Amino acid sequence: MFHVKHPDFIDVIVIGAGHAGCEAAWAAANRGATVRLITQNLDTIAKMSCNPAIGGIGKGHLVHEVDALGGLMGVAADQSALQYRVLNRRKGPAVRATRTQCDRRLYHIYMRSMLDGHPRIHLHQGSVSELMFDGDRVVGVVDELGVKHECSSVVLTTGTFLGGVIHVGDRSMPAGRAGDAPVMGLTDELYRRELKVGRLKTGTPPRLDKKTIAWDQLPMQPGETDVQPFSLMHDHVKQEQIPCAITRTTERTHEIILENLSRSPMYSGKIEGVGPRYCPSIEDKVVRFADKSSHQIFLEPEGGDHNEVYPNGISTSLPIDVQWAFVRSIPGLEKVNLIRPGYAVEYDYISPQELTSSLETKKIKALFHAGQINGTTGYEEAAAQGLIAGINAASAALELPHWVPDRSQAYMGVMIDDLVTKGVTEPYRMFTSRAEFRLQLREDNADLRLGNHAIELGLYSELRRQRFEARRDRVGEVFASAGAMQIGTGAEWRSRLAELRLPVPTQSMLFSSYCHREDVNVDQAVGLLDGAGALNVRDLESIKALLHYSGYIDKQHQDVDRFKKMEAQIIPETIDYSRIAGISIECSQRLQSARPATLGQASRLSGVTPAALTGLMMHLRTLS
Amino acid sequence: MFHVKHPDFIDVIVIGAGHAGCEAAWAAANRGATVRLITQNLDTIAKMSCNPAIGGIGKGHLVHEVDALGGLMGVAADQSALQYRVLNRRKGPAVRATRTQCDRRLYHIYMRSMLDGHPRIHLHQGSVSELMFDGDRVVGVVDELGVKHECSSVVLTTGTFLGGVIHVGDRSMPAGRAGDAPVMGLTDELYRRELKVGRLKTGTPPRLDKKTIAWDQLPMQPGETDVQPFSLMHDHVKQEQIPCAITRTTERTHEIILENLSRSPMYSGKIEGVGPRYCPSIEDKVVRFADKSSHQIFLEPEGGDHNEVYPNGISTSLPIDVQWAFVRSIPGLEKVNLIRPGYAVEYDYISPQELTSSLETKKIKALFHAGQINGTTGYEEAAAQGLIAGINAASAALELPHWVPDRSQAYMGVMIDDLVTKGVTEPYRMFTSRAEFRLQLREDNADLRLGNHAIELGLYSELRRQRFEARRDRVGEVFASAGAMQIGTGAEWRSRLAELRLPVPTQSMLFSSYCHREDVNVDQAVGLLDGAGALNVRDLESIKALLHYSGYIDKQHQDVDRFKKMEAQIIPETIDYSRIAGISIECSQRLQSARPATLGQASRLSGVTPAALTGLMMHLRTLS
Repeated sequence: MFHVKHPDFIDVIVIGAGHAGCEAAWAAANRGATVRLITQNLDTIAKMSCNPAIGGIGKGHLVHEVDALGGLMGVAADQSALQYRVLNRRKGPAVRATRTQCDRRLYHIYMRSMLDGHPRIHLHQGSVSELMFDGDRVVGVVDELGVKHECSSVVLTTGTFLGGVIHVGDRSMPAGRAGDAPVMGLTDELYRRELKVGRLKTGTPPRLDKKTIAWDQLPMQPGETDVQPFSLMHDHVKQEQIPCAITRTTERTHEIILENLSRSPMYSGKIEGVGPRYCPSIEDKVVRFADKSSHQIFLEPEGGDHNEVYPNGISTSLPIDVQWAFVRSIPGLEKVNLIRPGYAVEYDYISPQELTSSLETKKIKALFHAGQINGTTGYEEAAAQGLIAGINAASAALELPHWVPDRSQAYMGVMIDDLVTKGVTEPYRMFTSRAEFRLQLREDNADLRLGNHAIELGLYSELRRQRFEARRDRVGEVFASAGAMQIGTGAEWRSRLAELRLPVPTQSMLFSSYCHREDVNVDQAVGLLDGAGALNVRDLESIKALLHYSGYIDKQHQDVDRFKKMEAQIIPETIDYSRIAGISIECSQRLQSARPATLGQASRLSGVTPAALTGLMMHLRTLS
Repeated sequence: MFHVKHPDFIDVIVIGAGHAGCEAAWAAANRGATVRLITQNLDTIAKMSCNPAIGGIGKGHLVHEVDALGGLMGVAADQSALQYRVLNRRKGPAVRATRTQCDRRLYHIYMRSMLDGHPRIHLHQGSVSELMFDGDRVVGVVDELGVKHECSSVVLTTGTFLGGVIHVGDRSMPAGRAGDAPVMGLTDELYRRELKVGRLKTGTPPRLDKKTIAWDQLPMQPGETDVQPFSLMHDHVKQEQIPCAITRTTERTHEIILENLSRSPMYSGKIEGVGPRYCPSIEDKVVRFADKSSHQIFLEPEGGDHNEVYPNGISTSLPIDVQWAFVRSIPGLEKVNLIRPGYAVEYDYISPQELTSSLETKKIKALFHAGQINGTTGYEEAAAQGLIAGINAASAALELPHWVPDRSQAYMGVMIDDLVTKGVTEPYRMFTSRAEFRLQLREDNADLRLGNHAIELGLYSELRRQRFEARRDRVGEVFASAGAMQIGTGAEWRSRLAELRLPVPTQSMLFSSYCHREDVNVDQAVGLLDGAGALNVRDLESIKALLHYSGYIDKQHQDVDRFKKMEAQIIPETIDYSRIAGISIECSQRLQSARPATLGQASRLSGVTPAALTGLMMHLRTLS
């Protein structure tokens, strides 16, 4: 067979056009690189293979950060939203999270049209079967037609397609997703280059035909209207929101599942990969929470103009006849038709400990990994990694500086640091509890945290830059005015406060302290600040969050400073831990295998003792 | 492995949701059957695998007939049209043909939503691997999950997926379409049941990235506005029309192709299937028409909101590097990016001589075949067969009478009769020249020819029935008035004619003769008829066509009567041709193998002599 060369050299090749691949291509192109995005099928770009929803706790933060770095996910979710909700609304602003249900098809259409419209992104339908190397550097890829594509760097975003196998009961077949072929061959190549390979699994529920559901027998959950869209580019939620319905498994459902457990590929031992702990299958839930006689199910429409409904909560790989039986035992679903089967998919991942924090593999220069290949789960986790990998793949190609946010700047930073430092043993999902500095890592300030970096990296359009800078300056000025303001007790203050129906303090006090009083309506109090009239809803959220956490955030800044100092202590790649005094053999082996890049990373490794850290710190001082 | 039963029995199972499968499901459901439409991927329903266009010469007639029988294709084409054109506009109304370029994605969306909306159609994602039999009758299908689906009849519409193999240069891979897996196994099963299996091929050009085409250097072809939509349900073309561009191959293009001919799978002998004569690849055209130094290419957008462009005229299976080189030698495409490769696809077909004219296989009861599996090419040919197969599969399930239009009623009848009588040796495409009675088989009167049958078969919605009956009656009344009218020469006539700027005849004459005069503007003359004021544009076309062909059509009616008499002469299935006097051994063998159902079919078999026909006719008389 001939091998031929693609006629055009390209800076960056992105393999896979899922949630990671799309952001990688977009960010790399915005950074200035020419990009070829290679996908098996152009019609499945940004396909939501599982839940038609974006955001949620921890994940909503990632979407805001992707948007703050000029990414696509937030915009696409807004454009295709069927329903918005704010989770944790009663808790503090730091852990509040936005979630949308989306029209799966519109989401794809929007993503595709954005990629199509970028002058430096070139879509290419094909399947990559090999990588091309020059020593320890990747220099291109070969596709199934034998075409050699030469490039400066490669981003691998294979999702569940790498060695993918689908399971439904005792049936299994090679597939990256039901209806789509897997990617074979690449794993072996990475394995030969001594990258650590593992196996994970995930699952999805059967899809239901809308017209066969007894909607009128079920309680409905409407969307929320008092919600801000994900993207800074959107001021209001525009679409009419579509409700979803709520139902529950019954005791009969659980009986059917338990009776057939031996036919589940999970329980029969057919599946070796580890599944996502926080997104268990219904058979897992029935077994693990045996005391619960019912589990809630949301029936979420997958689109406005077709009939597929996603039953959130009953992911399963039980045999198809068991799926029918247990689904039909659920109220409202007695006569339902399953139009796609539920299934589990097993796939290869590469240990993220093989990566630097810019998501480049340590053993193969210019090769970047993002998304499920790194052992994560979730569209948002994938998108965030894709964006960072895209930035850095472009940086590598164009000889520009790399950039990665650290744990104090972004959830992205938390996630990437967790991945590359600790690796994974099960699919990694974002949670707010993973962040040390979560008071300052909020949805509302994602752009304020990351926007200046985005501009420096070239990630913003002119329009977005203007919108961001105006907002940054508005919020900054108003918050500065808040810091300088003392609420007085004189006549003038009395009349101003009365006008806003605010209480008069017995003695003059700082505005921020005043806002912490229980009898003060902060929404009203903000009206006292200079420039408050120019604030929009999003700005107000930011100001209120800053006021809410004032004091705490200052304290957190000190922690951040300490953290930054630890992160600044680079550990040389050539270090020999076995020769450092005060480090036990076990600790030394752990450090040797994880190879942390900084003292900070070393400190977060499990099993690394304070004594060992002190020894390491002393040793680093002798080097500097 | 377990086999399990689908919990619901269903009347009709349709396998495949392409252009044949969608119409089959829709028609069967309209006829009253419950239908399960099984497809490998619900997201590829009614996908236009090749040219994003519907209609054209002969094909436009089929689309009108599909619409006249309550089918989907005309409505979907109208809903997704990017551009309309009328071909053969300067020729007589009988051979005029409508063609639209469509938005490939909108076409899918519309089709899916119609199927989703039908209460008796149930979509099911899956892949069928076996048929279930009870003796010589099909009683269900088995899918890849081992599920047995029981039903009364099955429609097989496998398109290019049955044993599909894709070729690009020296590379080949199993696929029903680039990016989609083929259907394996079913062919063997049919072969074991002694159905005659063959191999055909077709091809598609590479797709181009809109943003890499130098549009400003190319002449543009706009759509036409003076056009009627395909469907009776639509009165006007609503969308703004999008132009396409025109370019041409150059001598350099031909050189590149000829230099690399040995690397074409067609010329190297790798492809054994026969391709469509009227849709040759560019390499075929360059070789077969060696005297031509250039071939025209239309650059047709595939959609309004994505970047794929279909270069109509350069279908190819040359190696991908040759595709790049020759495409970039074409004006306007010097810097173009190919975003999907061109390729040839080879697939299995089953000889349509295995079918009765209701498209049921003779050897397996209740099994119907429609579309490319019958050796045809084209979306329209597939849709028309799907519709007829759907009607008859439902009829079989519900024990209702079968129905097939004959050659005098519809192009569908012509096509099906050609297929089942003569079989195919290459992909069969519709042409107006294939019809004996083409003066009366026009686009404009498809509904007038078929609507009453459609109502009887239950294929119309209430709204469609009302629209049809009103139009049928309007046209009927006005045309009756035309038949009765004599144009006079008196004062009253003079003034009426003058008012419409029409010439005054020297002597009183029939209205239809008057309309044949060269100096008579027929559009104006129609104004003289009773009820003319109520006619819409579509009605006017019908009236004008009737006037245009008056006399000829009457004569054709006599031919039709003769034809009907021949068709009415049923040949018993048990006939033994070898015992009939006057039939040569060769003729007898031919008849024995083709097994024509009627004397008419026998008369159209090649190699059946007039003498043999006479002998057969005499023999049939002795039987009756």
